[in-house]
Amino acid sequence: MNTNKKELRVNAIKNGTVIDHIPAEDLFKVIKILGLQNINKPMTFGNNLESKTQGQKGIIKISEVFFKDKDIDRIALAAPYAKLNIIKDYTVTEKRQVEIPDEVVGIAQCVNPKCITNFEHDVETKFTVIDKEHITLKCHYCEKITSKKNLKLQ
Amino acid sequence: MNTNKKELRVNAIKNGTVIDHIPAEDLFKVIKILGLQNINKPMTFGNNLESKTQGQKGIIKISEVFFKDKDIDRIALAAPYAKLNIIKDYTVTEKRQVEIPDEVVGIAQCVNPKCITNFEHDVETKFTVIDKEHITLKCHYCEKITSKKNLKLQ
Repeated sequence: MNTNKKELRVNAIKNGTVIDHIPAEDLFKVIKILGLQNINKPMTFGNNLESKTQGQKGIIKISEVFFKDKDIDRIALAAPYAKLNIIKDYTVTEKRQVEIPDEVVGIAQCVNPKCITNFEHDVETKFTVIDKEHITLKCHYCEKITSKKNLKLQ
Repeated sequence: MNTNKKELRVNAIKNGTVIDHIPAEDLFKVIKILGLQNINKPMTFGNNLESKTQGQKGIIKISEVFFKDKDIDRIALAAPYAKLNIIKDYTVTEKRQVEIPDEVVGIAQCVNPKCITNFEHDVETKFTVIDKEHITLKCHYCEKITSKKNLKLQ
């Protein structure tokens, strides 16, 4: 049997994106929203890690991938306090926070069971964000309000 | 802007399970099969990492979690060559390989679109494994053969 008391190491990212301060229960939602299962670049994830500012957190590190603003803002519903570090040549060249967008397309489910988006699979959900602080969404089709409490991501 | 040229470190697991040599394209299937999204223990994942024996691989490290044989063998359909290290007090106390089970319940979809398991959501799929090397499954209900080529995990 091997004895291995030294720390395992994960190389720092030379170029890429680190997404930190993801709520632990939402890590896999963020992975799904960003489509990371279809990206063929080296990446590491941590979950249920100790955090100084929140109970437990998730973190994502992806080599050679830089997201567009609109893609990053898509994760805001799942991880509104996520922080991004953009890494170039081992150096943090940019720090960003996600922002709840004005409009949410194709990420959240409408709370109204009779809404057309819950029947017609080719009709993508679409909401106006009427309260960014409390995350309150108004459906473009049925005008019903979906609040953070009953928000389900697709 | 910070400069950080040293390696990022992930602590070695004191007690827990390391699952290595997962095919990169199947990491998230293995996570789903093991239900890791519902386990509240510190864990790290790596994907699309360089491997000496396969093109690109995934790896999972989970603290404080030890799986039963029958749970581990459930991942065999997605990751037949996965290797497990059981860690206790920073020491590898056991090495195991996954084994294709004799019977597969509730993991794979039957290839036959007319099979009852594709219509009745409360009927769990169930197969006898008739060829472990090539992963060939015979449906308990319709007796149709699902081969590795057309195997879809649920």
